[in-house]
Amino acid sequence: MARWLPGARGRLAAAALELATERGYDQTTVADIAARAGVTERTYYRHFADKREAFFGGSDTLIEQLRQAIVQADAALPPVAAAAAGARAMAAQLTDVEHSRLRARVVASDDALRERELLKLASLSTAAAAALRERGTAALPAGLLGDAAVSAFARGIEQWLEEGGELTAHVDAAFAAIGAALGG
Amino acid sequence: MARWLPGARGRLAAAALELATERGYDQTTVADIAARAGVTERTYYRHFADKREAFFGGSDTLIEQLRQAIVQADAALPPVAAAAAGARAMAAQLTDVEHSRLRARVVASDDALRERELLKLASLSTAAAAALRERGTAALPAGLLGDAAVSAFARGIEQWLEEGGELTAHVDAAFAAIGAALGG
Repeated sequence: MARWLPGARGRLAAAALELATERGYDQTTVADIAARAGVTERTYYRHFADKREAFFGGSDTLIEQLRQAIVQADAALPPVAAAAAGARAMAAQLTDVEHSRLRARVVASDDALRERELLKLASLSTAAAAALRERGTAALPAGLLGDAAVSAFARGIEQWLEEGGELTAHVDAAFAAIGAALGG
Repeated sequence: MARWLPGARGRLAAAALELATERGYDQTTVADIAARAGVTERTYYRHFADKREAFFGGSDTLIEQLRQAIVQADAALPPVAAAAAGARAMAAQLTDVEHSRLRARVVASDDALRERELLKLASLSTAAAAALRERGTAALPAGLLGDAAVSAFARGIEQWLEEGGELTAHVDAAFAAIGAALGG
């Protein structure tokens, strides 16, 4: 394999999105995805636990960026600022709006993919709350701020897919809008 | 069947929780649940689409209470107050903490039940946002407040299962705590 080709994992994720967009998620098998990526099914399962996971390949990176941003935020900052930094760090990972639009369409088309997406978002919320507790935030506000960070991330993505621009700006705006909306 | 017996739906839900608590969710079949409730499997499937649904029998009522509380809140109230009323109306449906503790333990024990729970919570958030939009709230704040109502409901339940008392008080406190935490 030529060195300049992206790794098998990246090619598998791209192949899964291409095939699901072309013919539908239901009509796409792991064997199809592996063939399109030029690898064996066995290689597919070295990278992804099941067919759904090919659409969530970036979620470990999201969690890691979220965690680092919260834990490494200036200790003098209030928890809300650390949570906002976490939401922004996740947003900075997503820059290709066209790719995200295709992916969102595929995920919305299938109940099992939607369930997996909700599970990933819940993991992000749990990770944010754990990172906030590491900074000394009590359990209840840590949980609520973790949920708020994920709410801002998810609603910011919806705005971004509709309007374009920079995702980080949409997520910052959504985070600020939670405070404004809660203020009545 | 004697008139004073609860309906088949309620007995099936109770039987599912009993059996899953006694022997584990994995070791419980729909046939077992139907037998314990004194009905046929066919009757089970008239009430619930699959084995998981027996643990989510109250979710339609939750959605309806949430929707009504938001739509019927005084038109002069700001959206945040309507969202808080929605969270409180859901909380008022749950009064048996021991039952909720058993149920939470079963749901936590199985990935498929956890996924279904997240799907139900996402439906509540979507319903809250739709009800807020009916009142004239714009899409982004409606989505964020819908998420906040569900966050307060879910975190309030966690506190309630730990500490007891009235769920409505825990959910009111959690909703207020979001505003306080967001304020820094």
